[in-house]
Order: sequence, then structure tokens, then C-alpha cells
Amino acid sequence: MHSLDGDIMEERKISRAVISRLPRYYRYLGELSEEGVERISSKELSERMKVTASQIRQDLNNFGGFGQQGYGYNVRYLYNEIAKILGIDRQHNIIIIGAGHLGQAIANYANFERRGFLIQAMFDVDPNLFGKTVRGARVYSLDSLEKFISENDIQIAALTIPKARAMEVADRLVKSGIKAIWNFAHTDLTVPDDVIVENVHLSESLMRLSYRVSNMDAIPFEGKYD
Amino acid sequence: MHSLDGDIMEERKISRAVISRLPRYYRYLGELSEEGVERISSKELSERMKVTASQIRQDLNNFGGFGQQGYGYNVRYLYNEIAKILGIDRQHNIIIIGAGHLGQAIANYANFERRGFLIQAMFDVDPNLFGKTVRGARVYSLDSLEKFISENDIQIAALTIPKARAMEVADRLVKSGIKAIWNFAHTDLTVPDDVIVENVHLSESLMRLSYRVSNMDAIPFEGKYD
Repeated sequence: MHSLDGDIMEERKISRAVISRLPRYYRYLGELSEEGVERISSKELSERMKVTASQIRQDLNNFGGFGQQGYGYNVRYLYNEIAKILGIDRQHNIIIIGAGHLGQAIANYANFERRGFLIQAMFDVDPNLFGKTVRGARVYSLDSLEKFISENDIQIAALTIPKARAMEVADRLVKSGIKAIWNFAHTDLTVPDDVIVENVHLSESLMRLSYRVSNMDAIPFEGKYD
Repeated sequence: MHSLDGDIMEERKISRAVISRLPRYYRYLGELSEEGVERISSKELSERMKVTASQIRQDLNNFGGFGQQGYGYNVRYLYNEIAKILGIDRQHNIIIIGAGHLGQAIANYANFERRGFLIQAMFDVDPNLFGKTVRGARVYSLDSLEKFISENDIQIAALTIPKARAMEVADRLVKSGIKAIWNFAHTDLTVPDDVIVENVHLSESLMRLSYRVSNMDAIPFEGKYD
């Protein structure tokens, strides 16, 4: 069984598709672990996750394998290793810009906290929201954004504001040193190369659903969309 | 210029990747149209969308082309054709199960309405929410779910409830004839083949962001993740 040593880290060029699937492995392994399952073969995991066993082996081989032929995977070990790969074995401090329903929904989501994502503050332009707290995260005026970031160790900013103001706020975040933006605004942000944007475009997801319903016969069956 | 006639509909087996990109074309064409742009070359569109011109041509060729060599695309025409392909040239009635912050955020999102997605009702188990309305969508007791569906022409159900109850509610939706579920619950739903599930797993999106921040050097640069 390989460990994630420096060599492997340097060699790997993991495809987007594999990375997109990792959180799902993590979720299933977490559930198995909660159920008390200690080992699982790629065949059993495959049946449960409804992907092929060879895909599972290939995906996990990108990170050095984790399985011994004939013995299957050690669930807890694999779970922890994927956590390390995903970078969720450490704490991430998050701020949310936009304390409307969506921002509050995110702040309220206990699961994030369990995975080390701590919502440290929310920011808004609506004075009626200032001082409100959601699961311990207080809403501040957007005016104090730069000050808060400079005084706190913030890694991720979630943007849940209308498209019209998203780019302007993203610029302020970048100038404040934020390297990761979780963007819910319905627009593409232009940021420097060393800043990462992960988009959640809900209307695009809804349109994909609409497409699939409208074109059921024309849909290839080889996989899922997410 | 081809039209979307029956032949083309029958032939096409569009890849997931192309379908995933269509809503983004739709968004950019909508913005161009609002700016008064009437024609655009694949090169100009490519610069704006930051994808290659050949990808744009390939993607749109899946649906019969829409462009004449040297003349570029007619923005409004292409916008309308993509709307038809996405099935958003007609009205879709939606219900939301779960009237918490996330459900209310979705009900509040005016953009959905503009694209023909009308939120007709919300359902919850919390009596304190019954009767509340969000942008005209009233919250009903989950007990009346089947009755509401049978009396209204509902195409899509959004699930914004905790994972623990998601499968049970999905079963009820399927029994009531719903063919499209927009699933925000952090679990995979098992549904019959003729029911479509589009997942929005926010924690998985956040983990992808975490991965990318934690592995910036190892990330392939060939594209975006969404």
C-alpha cells in the first residue's frame, strides 16, 4: 500500500473527472464507517455507489492505490486518506458575502462544520441584518470586509450576492489576499491565476434538469451529470 | 443553417460535457443580446467565454451548427434555439420540498421565473411555516403533497430537506408521477429509470474547492471544473 509521499504528489496530474468524484467516495466511505464496515472490496463499493469496480480501482490508483489485491479497502484508512487529499483534514475558515436566504442556508449547514469548514462571519449591505447571527456567524457591514479578513485567518469566501455586484466584491476579496472563492453569483468571475473559483450556478443546474426531462430519449446512459 | 428537425433529434447522442456547457452558452448569448449585439463570430464568443473557438463550433455542431462560415452566429436566433434545446421555451411548474433557508432562497430567485421555472408551492413539516408565502409560493404541510401534485401540473420537485428523509420523500414524489427531482439533499436517490435526478451537493462542491486550494500545484490547467 502506497502512502502519499512527495514523489507521488509531484507526479500526479489528476483529471477533473476524478477530482469531481472524490467527494462522493468520501461520502460513501463515511457512511460505511458509521455503519461499522471495516473493509470493502471494490466490487461491493461499486454496487453501492453504482459505478464500475474498474472505475473505482482506476480512480483510487491515481493516488497510489490504497488497496491490496484480494483484501479490498480498509474503509477508515481510505476515508482518512481521501480527507487528506481533499484538504479537509485541516480547518478552513470561511466568510460569506451576502446574508440573504442562500447565505444563511450555507451558514446553517452543520455538515460543513463537521468537515472542518467553519463559517466565521457573514457580510451584507442591508443594515437590518447587521448583528444577526446564524450558528454563531455574525453578520457585519460589507464596509468592514477588508478589516475582518486582515485580522482573521480566512481561506475561503462564499459569494451569495447578485451578479451585478459579484465582480466588484470579488476584486476586493482578491486584493485582501483571498485565494478561494465559492461563487454562487450567476456570472463568471475574472480573477488572477493564483485564485481559485468554484462555481455553483443554480440556474444552470436547473436548465440541465430541464434539458434532460425534455430530451429523455436522446440522453446517453453512460453516467451521471454531476 | 439547419433547423432542429426530427431527423437531427433522433440522431443525436449528446455528451454530458456538451450538455453541461449549454446553459453557459445560453447565459452569454442572453447577455450579448441584452447589450444589443446581433451577430458574433465563434472567435469573439470564444474570447468572451474563455473557451476555444473550435470547442464552440464543435459544441454547437452537435445541434446542427447554427452558424454560416464567415458570418458568425445570429445571437438572438442561437439564444432562442438553445432555449428550445434546453426545454426552457416552455413553462415548468416546480414545487419545493423543504421551506427552510435553502428552499426559500430558491423560491426567492427571480431568475428562475424569467426562464419559465415557476415555483408553485413549498412543503414542510414545520407548522410554523404553513401559510407563509415566498414570492407567491405558499408553504403547505407535507401531508398534502400528493393531493397538490394530483391537482396541479407539476413537472419538477426540488428537495431541500435533510438527507435522512430525502429517500422517503423521493419515493412519494415518484409515486405521484414526478419525473424530475432537483436534489439538494446530501445523498444519492434511488429512483426508477424514467425519473431524472439532478444533484446539487453543496458539500461536494466545497470539498472540490478545498482540494484545489490544497493542491494548487498539482492541478491540470486544461479547464474549469463546472
